[in-house]
Amino acid sequence: MQKTTDIPSSIQWKDTHITILNQQALPQITEFIDLYTIQDVFDSITTLKVRGAPAIGIAAAYGIALSASAFIGDDLLAFRKKTEEDISFLSSSRPTAVNLFWSLNRMRKKLNDASSVNGAKTDLTHEAIAIFTEDEATCRSIGEYGLTLFKPGDTVLTHCNAGGIATARYGTALAPFHLAAEKGINLRVFACETRPVLQGARLTAWELMQAGVDVTLISDNMAAHAISTQKISSIIVGADRITANGDTANKIGTLSLAVLANHFGIPFYVAAPSSTFDLSLETGDLIPIEERDPKEITHIHGVRVAPENVSVFNPAFDVTPNHLITAIITEEGIIYPDFKKNIPDTIKN
Amino acid sequence: MQKTTDIPSSIQWKDTHITILNQQALPQITEFIDLYTIQDVFDSITTLKVRGAPAIGIAAAYGIALSASAFIGDDLLAFRKKTEEDISFLSSSRPTAVNLFWSLNRMRKKLNDASSVNGAKTDLTHEAIAIFTEDEATCRSIGEYGLTLFKPGDTVLTHCNAGGIATARYGTALAPFHLAAEKGINLRVFACETRPVLQGARLTAWELMQAGVDVTLISDNMAAHAISTQKISSIIVGADRITANGDTANKIGTLSLAVLANHFGIPFYVAAPSSTFDLSLETGDLIPIEERDPKEITHIHGVRVAPENVSVFNPAFDVTPNHLITAIITEEGIIYPDFKKNIPDTIKN
Repeated sequence: MQKTTDIPSSIQWKDTHITILNQQALPQITEFIDLYTIQDVFDSITTLKVRGAPAIGIAAAYGIALSASAFIGDDLLAFRKKTEEDISFLSSSRPTAVNLFWSLNRMRKKLNDASSVNGAKTDLTHEAIAIFTEDEATCRSIGEYGLTLFKPGDTVLTHCNAGGIATARYGTALAPFHLAAEKGINLRVFACETRPVLQGARLTAWELMQAGVDVTLISDNMAAHAISTQKISSIIVGADRITANGDTANKIGTLSLAVLANHFGIPFYVAAPSSTFDLSLETGDLIPIEERDPKEITHIHGVRVAPENVSVFNPAFDVTPNHLITAIITEEGIIYPDFKKNIPDTIKN
Repeated sequence: MQKTTDIPSSIQWKDTHITILNQQALPQITEFIDLYTIQDVFDSITTLKVRGAPAIGIAAAYGIALSASAFIGDDLLAFRKKTEEDISFLSSSRPTAVNLFWSLNRMRKKLNDASSVNGAKTDLTHEAIAIFTEDEATCRSIGEYGLTLFKPGDTVLTHCNAGGIATARYGTALAPFHLAAEKGINLRVFACETRPVLQGARLTAWELMQAGVDVTLISDNMAAHAISTQKISSIIVGADRITANGDTANKIGTLSLAVLANHFGIPFYVAAPSSTFDLSLETGDLIPIEERDPKEITHIHGVRVAPENVSVFNPAFDVTPNHLITAIITEEGIIYPDFKKNIPDTIKN
């Protein structure tokens, strides 16, 4: 049985460049890509080669560190202007996951504190590495807390890929399964394939198989039937942004699963680090929802599956209202309702 | 604007063979296939080249008529034995949709009534043609009743393809939209793509575009978000088998939509002919649910999208309990709860 440590790292810092696992090529090909410039990082985020809210945040931080390192000269004002432009540019790559903005804000603070170009280069690099290393510890902690919610033998349904490759390591929603595999605790997972980009089929199924976790793949529309016939005891998903009241933006299809959990009377858990909380927004209807290229729906692996010129609606995320969420698992502990009261008590962003 | 009449016929009787629209090749290719033998018909049903509960019933009846016509000799006993074998064979093609068994039972009655081989051949052919022609009238009636449930400008969500090509003409769940297009009434449709076989993307989107209906394609997991943000006023689906209490087997994903309709407080309608009712079963948990090849999930158009050797659960149907159904639209009228009381009052199978 392979362990989590064998799963390729999503992002590696290599001083002159970063090396990312190309998540668009999985599971057929385990391919790594070297990114040298801010444009490379931007493109890899928009094309989903690097994806997952925490991993996007890490990639963006490394992108700023890379670009800063490449700055020539010692004009601090020019350096600040250039680096601010880079931060703005990467901020525009994807709108929904807040970890991107959280991560870039950490980089901006280091930039603002800098008193020399060389010092800033070092500080920005250290900060990006810190964001990465903290994320691994954060995910492990989420996994430990999450694991307390499951009994050996439980069957748990998940959606999209909130896994090791969407973070520094371990993942968020998948962290409990990785830790269970490490500890020899038997948990069974049903993974929704997660159309249109198939992160569940391509990434979660692959990642959990690598870790020796018993995983069964279903199409998204099978969730209701699976819950009602396959003894699924709970649902766990990741998050892209959680507002102050607990409303949670996550991969499209999450809302449907939350409604099903509610209907069938099983717990619905969200697993996410503190960096996924956006306490500046009171409710989820304020979260911008990315709409992506209709081709994600009309074509699969380049093959057209729908009529030409068909109208398409392709939101990449939806918002699950807080009343459908049983608990939110963070590195600081498990937050239960009343979320509006308990989130600010736990999350200090 | 094209009208329903321009949509290719799902099945045509040609005396020596039947010609079917190959529903697996759509929407890229509008291809017709000639079927000569009972084996041809069986294969076209199992491989989904002909699909949709009423169309499967029609194809099976024609298959029996074809095979009967090809019988050589006038030994009535041998003819009966051979035709009974053919009926059993076609009965084994797919387990869930009851229209198949209903149609084959009609053929069996004609067989049992026969007093000569030649007479039986004629009667069986006439019966198969009657099943086809009655289905067109039935579907038109379902469309008329269904149309009374929608207001001009409504946006209605549907699943799979309960359309003209799944029946003799007009369809069941799609019949109201075809009639609305004929009458110049504006209705907007959201079509779920319907993984794994993509009947929504490939067939419903194509069929409604042919008929000039405003259709928007979404992936199945977008239904909740679409309902909550796109002013969807109701959901309508077809059915593969409806038991005496109103429990309804239909394409996988239907149960999820019924739960969503219930949660969001919009009507959930089932449209089906009398032949879809199985009054011999009291409740839906007695309906056999077909499980199909895992490759339908792991491969799309021949391209692998999931890891090799991944476990897959691939039920083709689910059962929606009667309490989640607002009304069942039949050619005899609209049946409302209490279904257990009202179904036997309306349906005389």
